[in-house]
Amino acid sequence: MLKNNTENFIACECSPSDADIIIFGAPFDGTTSFRPGTRFGPRAIRSESFGLETYSPYLDADLSDVRAADCGDIDLPFGNPDRALDIIEEFAGEIFSMGKIPYMLGGEHLASVGMFRAAIKRFPNIRILHFDAHADLRREYLGERLSHACAMRLCHDLTGDGKIFQFGIRSGDRDEFEFARGHTTMRKFSLEGIDEALMEISRNPVYLSVDLDVLDPSEFPGTGTPEAGGVSFDELRKALSKVCLNANVVALDAMELSPHYDLSGISTAAAGKIVRETLLALSIGKSKIKTSVKK
Amino acid sequence: MLKNNTENFIACECSPSDADIIIFGAPFDGTTSFRPGTRFGPRAIRSESFGLETYSPYLDADLSDVRAADCGDIDLPFGNPDRALDIIEEFAGEIFSMGKIPYMLGGEHLASVGMFRAAIKRFPNIRILHFDAHADLRREYLGERLSHACAMRLCHDLTGDGKIFQFGIRSGDRDEFEFARGHTTMRKFSLEGIDEALMEISRNPVYLSVDLDVLDPSEFPGTGTPEAGGVSFDELRKALSKVCLNANVVALDAMELSPHYDLSGISTAAAGKIVRETLLALSIGKSKIKTSVKK
Amino acid sequence: MLKNNTENFIACECSPSDADIIIFGAPFDGTTSFRPGTRFGPRAIRSESFGLETYSPYLDADLSDVRAADCGDIDLPFGNPDRALDIIEEFAGEIFSMGKIPYMLGGEHLASVGMFRAAIKRFPNIRILHFDAHADLRREYLGERLSHACAMRLCHDLTGDGKIFQFGIRSGDRDEFEFARGHTTMRKFSLEGIDEALMEISRNPVYLSVDLDVLDPSEFPGTGTPEAGGVSFDELRKALSKVCLNANVVALDAMELSPHYDLSGISTAAAGKIVRETLLALSIGKSKIKTSVKK
Amino acid sequence: MLKNNTENFIACECSPSDADIIIFGAPFDGTTSFRPGTRFGPRAIRSESFGLETYSPYLDADLSDVRAADCGDIDLPFGNPDRALDIIEEFAGEIFSMGKIPYMLGGEHLASVGMFRAAIKRFPNIRILHFDAHADLRREYLGERLSHACAMRLCHDLTGDGKIFQFGIRSGDRDEFEFARGHTTMRKFSLEGIDEALMEISRNPVYLSVDLDVLDPSEFPGTGTPEAGGVSFDELRKALSKVCLNANVVALDAMELSPHYDLSGISTAAAGKIVRETLLALSIGKSKIKTSVKK
Amino acid sequence: MLKNNTENFIACECSPSDADIIIFGAPFDGTTSFRPGTRFGPRAIRSESFGLETYSPYLDADLSDVRAADCGDIDLPFGNPDRALDIIEEFAGEIFSMGKIPYMLGGEHLASVGMFRAAIKRFPNIRILHFDAHADLRREYLGERLSHACAMRLCHDLTGDGKIFQFGIRSGDRDEFEFARGHTTMRKFSLEGIDEALMEISRNPVYLSVDLDVLDPSEFPGTGTPEAGGVSFDELRKALSKVCLNANVVALDAMELSPHYDLSGISTAAAGKIVRETLLALSIGKSKIKTSVKK
Amino acid sequence: MLKNNTENFIACECSPSDADIIIFGAPFDGTTSFRPGTRFGPRAIRSESFGLETYSPYLDADLSDVRAADCGDIDLPFGNPDRALDIIEEFAGEIFSMGKIPYMLGGEHLASVGMFRAAIKRFPNIRILHFDAHADLRREYLGERLSHACAMRLCHDLTGDGKIFQFGIRSGDRDEFEFARGHTTMRKFSLEGIDEALMEISRNPVYLSVDLDVLDPSEFPGTGTPEAGGVSFDELRKALSKVCLNANVVALDAMELSPHYDLSGISTAAAGKIVRETLLALSIGKSKIKTSVKK
Repeated sequence: MLKNNTENFIACECSPSDADIIIFGAPFDGTTSFRPGTRFGPRAIRSESFGLETYSPYLDADLSDVRAADCGDIDLPFGNPDRALDIIEEFAGEIFSMGKIPYMLGGEHLASVGMFRAAIKRFPNIRILHFDAHADLRREYLGERLSHACAMRLCHDLTGDGKIFQFGIRSGDRDEFEFARGHTTMRKFSLEGIDEALMEISRNPVYLSVDLDVLDPSEFPGTGTPEAGGVSFDELRKALSKVCLNANVVALDAMELSPHYDLSGISTAAAGKIVRETLLALSIGKSKIKTSVKK
Repeated sequence: MLKNNTENFIACECSPSDADIIIFGAPFDGTTSFRPGTRFGPRAIRSESFGLETYSPYLDADLSDVRAADCGDIDLPFGNPDRALDIIEEFAGEIFSMGKIPYMLGGEHLASVGMFRAAIKRFPNIRILHFDAHADLRREYLGERLSHACAMRLCHDLTGDGKIFQFGIRSGDRDEFEFARGHTTMRKFSLEGIDEALMEISRNPVYLSVDLDVLDPSEFPGTGTPEAGGVSFDELRKALSKVCLNANVVALDAMELSPHYDLSGISTAAAGKIVRETLLALSIGKSKIKTSVKK
Repeated sequence: MLKNNTENFIACECSPSDADIIIFGAPFDGTTSFRPGTRFGPRAIRSESFGLETYSPYLDADLSDVRAADCGDIDLPFGNPDRALDIIEEFAGEIFSMGKIPYMLGGEHLASVGMFRAAIKRFPNIRILHFDAHADLRREYLGERLSHACAMRLCHDLTGDGKIFQFGIRSGDRDEFEFARGHTTMRKFSLEGIDEALMEISRNPVYLSVDLDVLDPSEFPGTGTPEAGGVSFDELRKALSKVCLNANVVALDAMELSPHYDLSGISTAAAGKIVRETLLALSIGKSKIKTSVKK
Repeated sequence: MLKNNTENFIACECSPSDADIIIFGAPFDGTTSFRPGTRFGPRAIRSESFGLETYSPYLDADLSDVRAADCGDIDLPFGNPDRALDIIEEFAGEIFSMGKIPYMLGGEHLASVGMFRAAIKRFPNIRILHFDAHADLRREYLGERLSHACAMRLCHDLTGDGKIFQFGIRSGDRDEFEFARGHTTMRKFSLEGIDEALMEISRNPVYLSVDLDVLDPSEFPGTGTPEAGGVSFDELRKALSKVCLNANVVALDAMELSPHYDLSGISTAAAGKIVRETLLALSIGKSKIKTSVKK
Repeated sequence: MLKNNTENFIACECSPSDADIIIFGAPFDGTTSFRPGTRFGPRAIRSESFGLETYSPYLDADLSDVRAADCGDIDLPFGNPDRALDIIEEFAGEIFSMGKIPYMLGGEHLASVGMFRAAIKRFPNIRILHFDAHADLRREYLGERLSHACAMRLCHDLTGDGKIFQFGIRSGDRDEFEFARGHTTMRKFSLEGIDEALMEISRNPVYLSVDLDVLDPSEFPGTGTPEAGGVSFDELRKALSKVCLNANVVALDAMELSPHYDLSGISTAAAGKIVRETLLALSIGKSKIKTSVKK
Repeated sequence: MLKNNTENFIACECSPSDADIIIFGAPFDGTTSFRPGTRFGPRAIRSESFGLETYSPYLDADLSDVRAADCGDIDLPFGNPDRALDIIEEFAGEIFSMGKIPYMLGGEHLASVGMFRAAIKRFPNIRILHFDAHADLRREYLGERLSHACAMRLCHDLTGDGKIFQFGIRSGDRDEFEFARGHTTMRKFSLEGIDEALMEISRNPVYLSVDLDVLDPSEFPGTGTPEAGGVSFDELRKALSKVCLNANVVALDAMELSPHYDLSGISTAAAGKIVRETLLALSIGKSKIKTSVKK
């Protein structure tokens, strides 16, 4: 029987209504200040995911046991970040209203603000775990508030102090680092402090936001603003697995892959592997939660 | 309403059962002798087709008026050309049995043999119009008969003499050119002679086989074996439109895009535009035929 | 004597106040719908211009005899096309108020709208000569009016019918081509008709807008949306020289180089050569005008 | 005196009859499932080896003291893995029959099966030390047994249980990891356990098979299926030197460089350095063995 | 029987002593002013020649009938153009003294001066046919006389006026074009005038010097200084074949391929095809000469 | 007010006369033996520096507080290393005579010899801290003394024994390593021993020479001769900061970025970050020195 072509992240073949996790792409890079191109990120992750195995020897788990759907890239207008954020917020809101976990593939980091606005409406006591090379805490950038460089600052406007935990940060202007001292919990340069953070937020719903440029540029060259001195893939994989296994993650994203800047494809392959590992850990973590709830 | 992600050549969104033309990819490059990579061709054409318009100012026609479906890439085994051809033959056969026109995106040229085997079963008096830089008339290549360099020779085994018309040929060994003199109708270097060929085959069903490397490498660098001195995009576009408008094309293919060898993407864009123009011309041509049949 | 580093298009070393022509870059690509990256265009043209000679054997003229200044790239906000256009308009307006000719290097084609707004204020009976692969006549694109796909339509809003002459157009949707029939003078596919247009506008000031993707992708692969079937470099060079030599060009631009998509650098080299030839032709043309005025 | 051009891995200029070690290339990638191109690996290693020094400061030894010959790439048919393996087996067999050590440069990992068939005929109690990101233990892949994903499984068919030692494995399907538990000695993720393995096989002839993708993609991006989270060059260099210095290596290979996926050339440079270090260590190790035999 | 690896331009497998034509590479780019890298040209042509057929359908001739040897790249010092030219002169002189035709693959155009010095010693009434985008007639460049930009001027120092015929020239400074008017026969922009030149030099030995950048950058992007507006491959092929068939070519070169600037490989493929066609035409031409001498 | 375009390393906008540190580029790669292209290094560092922040979270300092000027690239002849070194020596000498610190961006390492000749004239008891993958201690290379492979040997000719401290060295021929034992202080493979060296030279002026290929190729692929097994960015950053903070650095350089070999741009980004961190550390270090002098 001939069928229309479907394309999804490997093994995420559930129908949306049957899925626990809904993957979608937010192909937006309209405020990127240095090198644009993250709009091609989600398609690349999806398309290259077929070079991955569905099985993880790290977690001894297989994507074929995860109920995830891939709804593809949403249509976003070019040159209008305001409207783009609204569309993302609405799309994520629809996923939340179905009781499912949205997994957004970026796209630039500003897109996270759209999904976070939907999340905090539904989960008012939500916390953000933020992995990034850049602080993203600018008040404005070249006169614009809706900028990728302001993403976490815009989230902070919604959360207030003490709700955002930042890891791996190694770039920003002086004001951002000063702002962090009073308003967020920032770990510079490394991913240390995850355990403390997890302890602190053990009763909160969590938005897990991963700017993949937290990785060292040697492992993740395909991004707009490579920052030397990042964390290794294994460090990131372990940290994210820990979060997904142990925290109550209600929404997550993996942002800032710009595949055209990495002709070798290793960035896309690394991104895909992060998506696989987080999907698996999330699925294992949720079943633990359900189990403990049942008891 | 959330939906699973579908991906198709732009505007080819019919269900297979409603479509007149069925696009599918044959991601096979297992006998490529120089630079492999055409397996990525059909995905690239599909994915980059969104940089095209659906409307053609050449034909004043729009893809939204064509009934075409895109069934994606079929699964083909690696390292077993024999079985790959069987699978392609079977898949194309299914399309023929539905009374539709298959449009195969390659993949290496050997794949055409699989689809042609299905075609000639159904249309015994079929003719081949073959556009290519290479004669593809070798008896064998490094001891193998199932080789891209033998594609037209293998078809000739099925058709017998005088049924294959070759255009744009500018490479081959001495034997191939000698073979052509007795057995096919070959036009070297250019696309001249199309009109005569169309006249000669006006009552025959036609298999239109396009190795895109017939284009000059300047316009189509993304291929395994670039051959300087090819035809221009406009020459090819015009010739193929003429064929599709005037001949009774029952099956067609566009082969040998190897996108990784062209980082600029112009090869993929050219391929996509050829697909669009042939889809439109085919659709216009068919409606003319139907009309004339009705009268 | 040590000096701070200056960087300009080759031989354009006048101070702005001494110059007849003022080059500047508009590094904006915020509404690009397919592949972004034209923001890097002006820097690339400037930087690679040192691979060019200052002398043109076509015009037997040398840039060292042209009085041009290069003011570098202007600062434009990311993600706010509205404000970007205002800044461009203001910057170009300043050049007009000094009685000089602005030469804008793009950046995406929408930027032309900013400079054209400044131009029509000062030259109300201005005409546009537009070279492009794309009609750019959309009313809106994904709901946005400020889009590169609407650039000429936005100019038409200011000029009214019959003031825009389009050459080389080979892409657009059906509505754009229909719009052109009633409202602009469009030559499809080729640059024919230049002489008639020049005759018709011989008494008007002219805005010369060149989307470099009018060139064939083989000669200009480094652009966002390559469209097969374009004009050759020599065809474009001759047409633009004719315009610059014979029309009263009061402002001009060369847009849509996206250098990261052409690793060979031939697109940037071609763009630079177009800039050199137009600068020279403009300079020769102006001296002819001055001479004829004097008599 | 003019001479025909010879080309060899740097300083491996012995005639084959005088050499202890015979390098040859197996340019075969016909069953590669994701990104082909390893056929270009051996030529790249040879050609780029002239960017290396012949001297190793790690081993304080110089290639000019090693007696090695480079016989170039052997001719292999495209699309026929069966016959390709036969040709490789025969070629390696000829080297064994001359009492020399073959050093095969790949090419995809399936080629190792050909050489291993020759090796086990001559050295029935041979053991395999296998460095790889992938387990290569599939029973079949898309219905084919002769697949790169089955390479070690095919070797296991010949050796039986307990003869294969695998290091650095971080990818495979669930079945492969289960198979490994009963049938091979597998170290996941790292190269630990080398010393124990060397102890265990101290009396056995050894086939050393290195899939270079065991390296982290950051150091070795030029391969078909990059797997994030690999070992470092120095870890691999040390482990392989230890093996070559201490085990009775009778045949070895370095596989899966796909140079076109790494435009920076660092993968090829790393591969070449691995070849140099193993040649040197092998040579030092053999002289130790000979010395101890003499006593 | 195992053999050391030889590598040659396809089918040029004669021993040097049996050959009529001796190919060698001059991997020198030490005075390149814009983008270096032609040192990799000869290796690339040799290595990629295996993507070509040995048979030419243009000339109906096969390289297997030509007696040519490939002696590989000669060793040239880096940073010392003076000594490099001496080495090239000596090497070419040795070929002349064997009564054979040297065919040098560049490398930058300055290398031609070395071979030409050897040629004019042996053939004092020699003429130069020079195909190039650039005039190469500078007296000096940044204070240096030994510069690629001076190559033909340095040859002119040896020949005097009227002995150099230049074709396709489209770049240079004003002085070069003025110099040409009095001292060489220059055809700008195109290859017209070949027939007249061949008539004029019908009794002279000819040095045929081809800077491959005479080709349009669309067909030959892989060069140091791409100049838009060049000739097509077919135009160049025809012109060079005419020269090789009809003139008494005693030495020839094909220069300025810089393969790293063309990742698609079409430049190298075009260069190789030019080498094949000139080898064949030369061989046919020589046999005609011999025949006519015999009669 | 319109101004001519200036271009500088980010935030280094002082006039030369006001600056403490003078940046300039030495775009010379004329003796590079493997892959040329470092001539493009300084422009790339300057141009891509705008992707960096001016603030360093490592040093809690901002470039806006450093008084540095960028004088751009100096004009150097192609093909004449002798004269190039003289020009560099003279330029650096002028900076020394103004009492400022020159910071040279390479270009190949041989350029350091020119600046060092100026430095030792002014600071006879100067010491060299040399970070590199390569020993650069050859007596000559292919017969030439002025070669990048001889850079430190040429410096040693001027300093005599015991004045050069080398770190990270992992490549060279046997003679170089032997020479090092008697004449320099060499640390192989790592950056250990910095503290001892700093202690030993605490009273000497220091020339800090950084061949950026000391970095691992995974973090710095964009260089002529990548050597696997290098140090990490963080290791280098820390070591250089320590030197700049604590030693009396009177001149420094950052050499051997070859940006065309790294299309991802991570090498240029890493180089720029090294420049930022050393500028900042130098500035902090100098103010400490001044302070202590004042007391």
